[in-house]
Amino acid sequence: MVFVLKPNVSKEQTETFMKSWEDKGFSAILSPGTEHTAVCLIGNTANIDMDDVVHTSGIVEYGKRITERYKVAARSVHPDDTVIKVGNAVFDRHHFPVISGPCSVESEEQIIMLARAVKQSGAKILRGGAFKPRSSPYSFQGLGADGLRYLLAAKKDTGLPIVTEIMNQTQLPLFEDVDIIQIGARNMQNFDLLKCAGTAGKPILLKRGPASTIEDLLLSAEYLMVSGCRDVILCERGIRTFETATRNTLDLSSVPLLKQKTHLPVIVDPSHATGIRSLVRPLSHAILAVGADGLMLETHNDPAAALCDGAQSLNLREFDDLMADLKLRSVIERKEV
Amino acid sequence: MVFVLKPNVSKEQTETFMKSWEDKGFSAILSPGTEHTAVCLIGNTANIDMDDVVHTSGIVEYGKRITERYKVAARSVHPDDTVIKVGNAVFDRHHFPVISGPCSVESEEQIIMLARAVKQSGAKILRGGAFKPRSSPYSFQGLGADGLRYLLAAKKDTGLPIVTEIMNQTQLPLFEDVDIIQIGARNMQNFDLLKCAGTAGKPILLKRGPASTIEDLLLSAEYLMVSGCRDVILCERGIRTFETATRNTLDLSSVPLLKQKTHLPVIVDPSHATGIRSLVRPLSHAILAVGADGLMLETHNDPAAALCDGAQSLNLREFDDLMADLKLRSVIERKEV
Amino acid sequence: MVFVLKPNVSKEQTETFMKSWEDKGFSAILSPGTEHTAVCLIGNTANIDMDDVVHTSGIVEYGKRITERYKVAARSVHPDDTVIKVGNAVFDRHHFPVISGPCSVESEEQIIMLARAVKQSGAKILRGGAFKPRSSPYSFQGLGADGLRYLLAAKKDTGLPIVTEIMNQTQLPLFEDVDIIQIGARNMQNFDLLKCAGTAGKPILLKRGPASTIEDLLLSAEYLMVSGCRDVILCERGIRTFETATRNTLDLSSVPLLKQKTHLPVIVDPSHATGIRSLVRPLSHAILAVGADGLMLETHNDPAAALCDGAQSLNLREFDDLMADLKLRSVIERKEV
Amino acid sequence: MVFVLKPNVSKEQTETFMKSWEDKGFSAILSPGTEHTAVCLIGNTANIDMDDVVHTSGIVEYGKRITERYKVAARSVHPDDTVIKVGNAVFDRHHFPVISGPCSVESEEQIIMLARAVKQSGAKILRGGAFKPRSSPYSFQGLGADGLRYLLAAKKDTGLPIVTEIMNQTQLPLFEDVDIIQIGARNMQNFDLLKCAGTAGKPILLKRGPASTIEDLLLSAEYLMVSGCRDVILCERGIRTFETATRNTLDLSSVPLLKQKTHLPVIVDPSHATGIRSLVRPLSHAILAVGADGLMLETHNDPAAALCDGAQSLNLREFDDLMADLKLRSVIERKEV
Repeated sequence: MVFVLKPNVSKEQTETFMKSWEDKGFSAILSPGTEHTAVCLIGNTANIDMDDVVHTSGIVEYGKRITERYKVAARSVHPDDTVIKVGNAVFDRHHFPVISGPCSVESEEQIIMLARAVKQSGAKILRGGAFKPRSSPYSFQGLGADGLRYLLAAKKDTGLPIVTEIMNQTQLPLFEDVDIIQIGARNMQNFDLLKCAGTAGKPILLKRGPASTIEDLLLSAEYLMVSGCRDVILCERGIRTFETATRNTLDLSSVPLLKQKTHLPVIVDPSHATGIRSLVRPLSHAILAVGADGLMLETHNDPAAALCDGAQSLNLREFDDLMADLKLRSVIERKEV
Repeated sequence: MVFVLKPNVSKEQTETFMKSWEDKGFSAILSPGTEHTAVCLIGNTANIDMDDVVHTSGIVEYGKRITERYKVAARSVHPDDTVIKVGNAVFDRHHFPVISGPCSVESEEQIIMLARAVKQSGAKILRGGAFKPRSSPYSFQGLGADGLRYLLAAKKDTGLPIVTEIMNQTQLPLFEDVDIIQIGARNMQNFDLLKCAGTAGKPILLKRGPASTIEDLLLSAEYLMVSGCRDVILCERGIRTFETATRNTLDLSSVPLLKQKTHLPVIVDPSHATGIRSLVRPLSHAILAVGADGLMLETHNDPAAALCDGAQSLNLREFDDLMADLKLRSVIERKEV
Repeated sequence: MVFVLKPNVSKEQTETFMKSWEDKGFSAILSPGTEHTAVCLIGNTANIDMDDVVHTSGIVEYGKRITERYKVAARSVHPDDTVIKVGNAVFDRHHFPVISGPCSVESEEQIIMLARAVKQSGAKILRGGAFKPRSSPYSFQGLGADGLRYLLAAKKDTGLPIVTEIMNQTQLPLFEDVDIIQIGARNMQNFDLLKCAGTAGKPILLKRGPASTIEDLLLSAEYLMVSGCRDVILCERGIRTFETATRNTLDLSSVPLLKQKTHLPVIVDPSHATGIRSLVRPLSHAILAVGADGLMLETHNDPAAALCDGAQSLNLREFDDLMADLKLRSVIERKEV
Repeated sequence: MVFVLKPNVSKEQTETFMKSWEDKGFSAILSPGTEHTAVCLIGNTANIDMDDVVHTSGIVEYGKRITERYKVAARSVHPDDTVIKVGNAVFDRHHFPVISGPCSVESEEQIIMLARAVKQSGAKILRGGAFKPRSSPYSFQGLGADGLRYLLAAKKDTGLPIVTEIMNQTQLPLFEDVDIIQIGARNMQNFDLLKCAGTAGKPILLKRGPASTIEDLLLSAEYLMVSGCRDVILCERGIRTFETATRNTLDLSSVPLLKQKTHLPVIVDPSHATGIRSLVRPLSHAILAVGADGLMLETHNDPAAALCDGAQSLNLREFDDLMADLKLRSVIERKEV
């Protein structure tokens, strides 16, 4: 149940109102918007008389029952888009920030070189894996804390904000200077990690799991939001189907559908979705055109020699060409790349 | 195995060459291109010495083993794009013809009215179901032969070519004046229907089955081509996955992948892929941007009252708006809608 | 809506009752059972007052609304099991007939030899493909009408009833002496074939399609039943999933679930489900134990040399061993193999 | 690469041999068997001359290259079955231990009552969730550490060993008195949890993830084994497919396939696989018959009032009936329930 407050309600009034519900055993979550502030009530709300609350509270404009299983993430609770700003990147309907970098950080020199190159081409955020989830224990597991340090060096060198994946909650202290914490596809339903990462006070990039429905993804976002994180960036990266020609099946319909169901920004990662370098360019065009709020893709100085996922990484010239494409196309989308 | 012929080889020389192989028990299929003509050899080619053929035949430029399970449909056999023209519609990389109309033909008046409207908005081909494959025997099964007659009346009235679905081979005589024969998703592996429809001397629109891989789709196209049809239009329309938020999962990655693997044009049907009207517009933008050679979608004068699939049909105003969108966007794609 | 008739209602009374509904535009389908005969009404039954029908008809014991999309196939309409007898095979809860034979009929000698062998081991029905649906036009397509003749010769030689697949409705006359017509997985939603095969006056073995839900399967059975076929044998043979270690994913849960939802017998084909010979034996044990009404599997005199699906076929010794297993195990299931 | 040692090689010789490889940068993992002890070498083994090792080492009988991506878990490395004993439960081909209990521990009284009841019926191990992974943050999350204490009280009361799920590595100290640590389906690729749990010195029950192939499952088992855990029990519990009639699709073919690929025991959980109580009994029969090494299922004193997964839980009478069934059937399987 959500109560949309009247304009000009004071912070104190709002807090008193919320506390009155918490005293009755409900959770009350504040959902501020540009025009309306709403209070979302979690608990057994079946017996609450909404009209009565409107009349007696004095500060509520109207109440609404929420039928979705997710609440704070629901567009019906918070009609305005959530706009997330990180450095020069803005995730919203007027922008299309590109996040780029290697699958894995391989050395300090490599990541600094790549950071300079992708920045030069127009990337707004640097990505790079330090802790790598790999199906096999015998695959390269990432450089770990060293990788993180090299990423931070690249950030310092270029000024680009960085996003990198956390694999378990004990790593959180290492992420203090990371700008966006990534929860990977295989950890999308690692609920303890969600609860912990949600408290970090940072934007979180949440990737869709390979067996996760859109509702599952939004419920995982809800875990983050209930834990305190308001800036969740959703990332479609393909689901697992019977089709083996691509690594996963990119579900591009999820983008406009998510934009209807939630106020959170939605970006897409065509590199992991397809696993095939030559598909990244046409799909990036489609991702921009379908209305996504950003793009995440893998680049490498020498894809053939990459320690991980070389087959899906663009080289720097390909990336630069793609960025030029996207800038041209962004005009017609009325978006800024 | 494919033999690419030298330029200026005569028709007689080619036929003699092909006959020499057929006499040895192979099938020889001619694959003409703008720059090269190729002869595709089907059978146990393991012991053929390609160099020997080049030397002794006098007309072969070079030979090539084809590793794909499909042959005539393979880009490696026929590097040029197959360009298919039907009325004013051209299916190729420079055009983006839109096929539109109702899920089912409901009456002569309805289909003529819709044909005029979609033509006015810029559709190049009229679609409409006369014979309808429905999961339940209790659902509306289409108007059948009457529906076909009404479609032909609409064709006569507007000059628009028509495409409609065939459900079994005994219906073929009824399709004499139909411009493009559609093989529906559930019949994609109805091999006897493919063998029969391939002899009709008409372009065929082949929809991907809900459990079909890209390779399955190309093998079904191969059935059509081996039976004599060179003008096969492939249509991505979603596959069946665990995601229930959409009717199917649109596999947009299949478009650029198919364009690499085959010379046949590839179009997309976002209506059946998603089952949700509000997703058709953003996905149509993406379909254009990803490099598809055309678009097929459902329109209805009154979607809420449609006998079939109303939830995914655009109304005429929505369709007109979308066409305006696509025309604007086509400039940047260097395509003509 | 179904009306369960009182005991001792005469045939004439029943026909008059049914005709009265047909005159009002409904379809009335008779569903006879051992204890109750029911009349299933198809059409817009929303405004029918069931109590009124009970009172005024005099022959109706009670009425019931059917919520399933399938009607005649529903257990709720016809609580008794449908028992299907073909030769010495009985498909019901007290028996477990085994259908066996090669994927494809390869010659008259081969099929007669195999028929004798599988009969000797205890198979009750001979299977063998004459018309073969194959993904590739270059794969062996079966011996066609010749194959059918060889099957009939094997039937004459051994007395075993035969089951073989029909691929299109024009083949129906060739199936006059076939005991059970098989509709293959890829034709499960070839609705015109279902409508036609349903009129043949023979039992039909309906295989589940690789992208078909249990409800889809029952709706396809409904097509057959509405066309006149009461003896539909459902066959689970695996669905298409992301798992590539087996050819398909055998959905054994579907057996007890189908037995709840429908009165039709359910058998299982582990050969096509898995594509792996060594899995056939343990899965056959499981198929018996889960409560299936029969088993269908592939055997071949020389699997390594089979023209089709050798990797999943048992040789004759393996089949004989398996049959001995099943006979032993059938005691505990209170079933007769 | 695996080196199978000669019989009667001493512990010291083995350690010296292993150390010699570790000094060269390989990982050497000991894989003891009843007849043969093997040393599995991980690293770039391409240039190792196996014959040379046999000749120079003096203790190696033969070497073998392992083509599977998993090594220590592979049957080819360790042909004997791994037999795991926990209390009176033995997981191997001669036994069929049943693990039973509620989805969630709800109170001390409840779990003690259920433990007594399932022990009385023949269960060998008590299950019960204390930390519960739930899709929604608003669903009951389990009693946590209290739930664990209640489980331990039930263990003390009945003598039944307990298995319960760990959700993150910081919980490991709480699991000191737990007999088997469960890694749930959604954490099957939480690699940091695997690495940590593998060091606990306890048997681990590893559930297959809903989007995981059989190879993925074995690679996750490999993570546990490389970290030190030899006693991994694999658990099939259904995968996510398009079929919505059941919660997941139970992949029973995986059981005999896993038994071929690995020496680890394989059990099955029909409760989570189907989500439907009435399917648990027939599927349990099938699970026994297909050759699984055990069964895990949910029971509840009052399923309708369960805090979690009531729809799939057996009540105590149903469980008792099922156990009687299984004991009877186990005779024919030559297994002890």
